[in-house]
Amino acid sequence: MNNNTVVVVDAMGGDNAPGEIVKGAVDAVNKNDKVEVILTGIEDQVRAELEKYTYPKERISIKHASEVITTEETPVFAIKKKKDSSIVVGQKLLKTGEADAFVSAGSTGALLVGGTLVAGRIRGIERTPIGTLIPTKTGVALLVDSGANVDCRPSHLVQFAQMGSIYMEHVVGVKNPRVSIVNIGVEEEKGNALVKETFPLLKECSSIHFTGSIEAREIPHGGADVIVCDGFTGNVILKLYEGTGAVLLSMIKQSMMSSLRSKIGALLIKPALKGTLKKFDASQYGGAPMLGLNGLVVKTHGSATAKEVCTSILQCITFKEQGINDKIKALLGRDVAKKKAEKAETAEGSAKEEKREEADN
Amino acid sequence: MNNNTVVVVDAMGGDNAPGEIVKGAVDAVNKNDKVEVILTGIEDQVRAELEKYTYPKERISIKHASEVITTEETPVFAIKKKKDSSIVVGQKLLKTGEADAFVSAGSTGALLVGGTLVAGRIRGIERTPIGTLIPTKTGVALLVDSGANVDCRPSHLVQFAQMGSIYMEHVVGVKNPRVSIVNIGVEEEKGNALVKETFPLLKECSSIHFTGSIEAREIPHGGADVIVCDGFTGNVILKLYEGTGAVLLSMIKQSMMSSLRSKIGALLIKPALKGTLKKFDASQYGGAPMLGLNGLVVKTHGSATAKEVCTSILQCITFKEQGINDKIKALLGRDVAKKKAEKAETAEGSAKEEKREEADN
Repeated sequence: MNNNTVVVVDAMGGDNAPGEIVKGAVDAVNKNDKVEVILTGIEDQVRAELEKYTYPKERISIKHASEVITTEETPVFAIKKKKDSSIVVGQKLLKTGEADAFVSAGSTGALLVGGTLVAGRIRGIERTPIGTLIPTKTGVALLVDSGANVDCRPSHLVQFAQMGSIYMEHVVGVKNPRVSIVNIGVEEEKGNALVKETFPLLKECSSIHFTGSIEAREIPHGGADVIVCDGFTGNVILKLYEGTGAVLLSMIKQSMMSSLRSKIGALLIKPALKGTLKKFDASQYGGAPMLGLNGLVVKTHGSATAKEVCTSILQCITFKEQGINDKIKALLGRDVAKKKAEKAETAEGSAKEEKREEADN
Repeated sequence: MNNNTVVVVDAMGGDNAPGEIVKGAVDAVNKNDKVEVILTGIEDQVRAELEKYTYPKERISIKHASEVITTEETPVFAIKKKKDSSIVVGQKLLKTGEADAFVSAGSTGALLVGGTLVAGRIRGIERTPIGTLIPTKTGVALLVDSGANVDCRPSHLVQFAQMGSIYMEHVVGVKNPRVSIVNIGVEEEKGNALVKETFPLLKECSSIHFTGSIEAREIPHGGADVIVCDGFTGNVILKLYEGTGAVLLSMIKQSMMSSLRSKIGALLIKPALKGTLKKFDASQYGGAPMLGLNGLVVKTHGSATAKEVCTSILQCITFKEQGINDKIKALLGRDVAKKKAEKAETAEGSAKEEKREEADN
């Protein structure tokens, strides 16, 4: 047995499949010799793309899958019906342990449903969130959940915080990451019902570095490393982030093109500006991990090019080498043990109380 | 009785009180002769500021209020304890009908609690939201609720949509405003529990022009005129909007100052850029209305200067002249009548059914 990281890549998912996806896989094995790729998809099409490149043949294989799930299909229905789709075939390899990770630019919904139904959740994990890396003024933060679970319970958010913290520390490399919950004020009494219930649980959680509430205003300033919220709020944050940035930049561009004077000015500041804006380009950070599954599932943008696919494959190596899922399991084991101990204690306590009551009577 | 709009202005609220507040009031009466202002606050201090200016004396008066509520105080406690505060005294004038509107840069929480406890809600209104005008690429949109009610029921959101629509059409002047609900996708089956329950109610609501769901990404593009959501989501949107804009602009400024070349470029594009960025400055639109109260309560920024105070006072004139609250009441009356009719119909229906059943037996 070798120690290579085995990454299944969905060759049929996304707007640029299979061309850019296959190219990304080739780039990844050429860049790093600790990774092996299994491409799932329609064999003829994938092979035709592969033949364009030079790469170590023993590290890329094809697993034929005759069906393709589109983003228009209802996820649950598609996963149940299309057993021979690239997504189902790929996630089965996670379930059996033949692969460590699965990278796809396909339907987020299908990946999530497939994650739960095919790959399966780590025992004890209640919900699997998507964590998205978003750029900030000072670096990058993990927004978790960014859209998988629209209605959450407090215990879900606590697990998101724990898993996000492990990912941020060991995959992204932020020491002792600051974990915050999205709120509408920093005072402890603020928040909606969900936040108010979750806050004390996070405060008590000894496995994370909880720094309290974060107002949305502080997110782009880099106010936290792991930003915890339900999937509805997270998705609103993610999309507004993209939208506001895009609109502001297009308005600035427009104003630069409005006169000869401003056009000359624009030419002069272009190089400096380009560097700045690159920092705010989320795609350079690779895909979004779905946390808490058997193996890692990474969702890249639907419009992902070879570069993003390659980055996403390479991030799976760190995930495996750092034993992220073992760390999650260890944490859950500790939580379960703690709960059992508490239960035992309470039982003992009430037994004693009963005895005392009996004596009193 | 004259037809002037009477606006109470909280002379003690906000970072720049009483100086900028009083100046804003003076500017308003000098600009428009259909408005009268009652300044509430500590009389000596207010009078000292007033004496600096020239203005029609008969249109500004002072109503003494010996106490001041700060933003640090717990709203419910402060409103109940400080009966002689500028906020309570001001909102009482709404309750009695002595004034049409109340403008304050003070504590949002206290204004909201005061609104419900002192001024009182319009009969039939379940919750009073804050509507904030946010700049978009194509103009301005009303975000409602932007922070007053963190946990909402579907019926609350329907009223927010109706009141927001009336405000946008008759105060801001957008004909037949497009109303959308914030969601994480445009398909009808998307959303959290609240959105899924609210969607069909909005679809059925004949008094608004409902255009479906809006993803947060489309908000800055100007995808809707009235953007409906619960106060938690709305507050996250509002603050992220501010934060993302501020960070992007500061990063762009930084990059412009990074070399001699870029500095020269910056000088050349400055005039064009300034015009663009002014469009994205929310403060020019005046304060945020709290809808559904007896009279209008307008919350201006805590940092409001005379200009914003003046704009906020003047927007109250349109509110009164357009009879916004009468329009809201008429709408509610229609809703109540409709519900009664439906109830009667159902009662009749079941009576008939009972008879039929009896005949069958």
